[in-house]
Amino acid sequence: MHISKSSCRIFFISLCGLFTAGTIPVAYAFDAFKPLPLTPIIPKDNPQSAPKVDLGKQLYFDPRLSVNGAVSCNTCHNLMAGGDDGRAVSVGAVGKAGTRSAPTLWNVSYETVYFWDGRAKSLEAAIKEHLLDQTVMAMPDAATLTNRFNSIPGYKREFDYVFDGPSGVSLDNTAKALASYIRTLSTRDSAFDRYLQGDKDAISASAEKGFQDFIATGCAACHFWVNMAGPVPGLAFKMGEGFYELFPNWLGSKYDEQYHLTDDLGRYAFDKNPKHKHLFRVPTLRNIAMTAPYFHNGSVKTLEQAVRVMAKTQIKRNLTDQQVNDIVAYLKTLSGQFPPQLMPRLPPAPGQSVYK
Amino acid sequence: MHISKSSCRIFFISLCGLFTAGTIPVAYAFDAFKPLPLTPIIPKDNPQSAPKVDLGKQLYFDPRLSVNGAVSCNTCHNLMAGGDDGRAVSVGAVGKAGTRSAPTLWNVSYETVYFWDGRAKSLEAAIKEHLLDQTVMAMPDAATLTNRFNSIPGYKREFDYVFDGPSGVSLDNTAKALASYIRTLSTRDSAFDRYLQGDKDAISASAEKGFQDFIATGCAACHFWVNMAGPVPGLAFKMGEGFYELFPNWLGSKYDEQYHLTDDLGRYAFDKNPKHKHLFRVPTLRNIAMTAPYFHNGSVKTLEQAVRVMAKTQIKRNLTDQQVNDIVAYLKTLSGQFPPQLMPRLPPAPGQSVYK
Repeated sequence: MHISKSSCRIFFISLCGLFTAGTIPVAYAFDAFKPLPLTPIIPKDNPQSAPKVDLGKQLYFDPRLSVNGAVSCNTCHNLMAGGDDGRAVSVGAVGKAGTRSAPTLWNVSYETVYFWDGRAKSLEAAIKEHLLDQTVMAMPDAATLTNRFNSIPGYKREFDYVFDGPSGVSLDNTAKALASYIRTLSTRDSAFDRYLQGDKDAISASAEKGFQDFIATGCAACHFWVNMAGPVPGLAFKMGEGFYELFPNWLGSKYDEQYHLTDDLGRYAFDKNPKHKHLFRVPTLRNIAMTAPYFHNGSVKTLEQAVRVMAKTQIKRNLTDQQVNDIVAYLKTLSGQFPPQLMPRLPPAPGQSVYK
Repeated sequence: MHISKSSCRIFFISLCGLFTAGTIPVAYAFDAFKPLPLTPIIPKDNPQSAPKVDLGKQLYFDPRLSVNGAVSCNTCHNLMAGGDDGRAVSVGAVGKAGTRSAPTLWNVSYETVYFWDGRAKSLEAAIKEHLLDQTVMAMPDAATLTNRFNSIPGYKREFDYVFDGPSGVSLDNTAKALASYIRTLSTRDSAFDRYLQGDKDAISASAEKGFQDFIATGCAACHFWVNMAGPVPGLAFKMGEGFYELFPNWLGSKYDEQYHLTDDLGRYAFDKNPKHKHLFRVPTLRNIAMTAPYFHNGSVKTLEQAVRVMAKTQIKRNLTDQQVNDIVAYLKTLSGQFPPQLMPRLPPAPGQSVYK
């Protein structure tokens, strides 16, 4: 995989320059933020359908996707909450802890690369990696998953119907159904979205000042566009895959050691490209107030401190307490409306244990 | 705690005698089974209310009830499935496994003692024990729970409203809200319930034969009344607390060793009463086809084998394969209608991690 990092960086630098110079017209700054489009990009080889989404929803909440029934997707990406698990790092089915914090899955379909290092180019690929990852679902292989779900009559029927059976159950189709469901997970109509759409009373004076600071200090250079996570190829900008940034961008602050910021080599650990040391996917800020603790390692427990650390390490700014409070007030306006969800019924394996 | 075991035993023996002798009129046998009453017994000190049930539902699905956010009530008692976790034994928040299999919580409110050994006399007491049990939620103490939920504004508001604040958050009130929600969990209108109510086509010929075998062989001596778990004091019979039985009742079968049936000392381990060695609460059979694996230790993986083992160890009968198949067909008619459940939204702690 190759990412056109140079174009990202050039884009970053221009935006950053514009924003930090404080020369951009307000209209332009507003143009850098958009409500979520009605639909994310749907891959041609996995079109949405209601039965597929229903199947994906069942699978999402079904712990039988893990080797021993200990965890479901929802364990670490809790949709009844902010779409994460509120833990620094998650612990998978067999008790092994990961090294990076589980991100929210709300609005994740408006991104184009997955994992903190962007190593998966599709939701489907990311899901398959999760299923077979021994620190996550810990399935030993695709055959175990296929055999298990074929043994559950309701699932076999649904898979065969959705994927035009008779061998509908497969690792690929499991990932496709899950991805289809996850693509429905959007939180629209945040206070900030209403503000963008002209309702100037939708956010407080402090949040409005925070939004101005967010632009003026340079936060918006990375956290912009529909998901406050940089441009989305296909939906607007023609760019490389994902939108990456060094973290820390400016080394040497006290935070490096305090929060172990340099321990994780980021994308380099995946592709061994020396230019990718400490490079991470820019994460969404939607619902950020609901997903503490913060950063790839979950090392920072409060949003206030996360704002301070980001300002210092990414744009070399010391914010005043007032600026921090205002920016946090702004970030809290990014919590959207969570669509009501009916709990799925998980098809039983009548009279049978599915575990070894 | 003292249970009036003698009355249970006498009752058991008379019923068993009636049933196994095959002398009871069909009408009497039918009278031993009832659809669930419209409401379970509601304790005077914890009346039901809609806001309390809503709060309890949020708590039920909230992993913040566990010390580190690893598990919620629903992890081991999965209401999207049969109300259990399908595992032999569950693993709690800090990775410790229990020694007894998590029972279903569907219809649990129609019982009067809780845990396999009946050591809790109320749902509230059982819940409090779970919260502080280091193999389950692993909360270090009540103060940790109270402080945590007081730090979550939405929860503090709800607790104060439901329990007439200003100090609504407490271990006791957490248990009360959870118990109120759990008391709403009934699965009515199973095929067998419809059969009991006169719809003779509601179950198959094999299931009907299985029901007759279930009575004639003596299974119904313990598994009868509204929850197929023995009498319910207060709802009908005036008896002691719960309905217990020795397991194994008849020692010496090959199953003792194969399924480690004698390892667990049952109620004796709780009260050290020598008469209570291997004494267990009779579990409900409602939705039994959805809660494999079986028995207090989860050692038997299929319902067929569970029926064989029960017949041999409890009533000293060797069933034919046909009898086993018919009884299993009958047991499958006990799966009820699961009421649709909207997922709760879990109140956020904006910008704060609640974990140490």
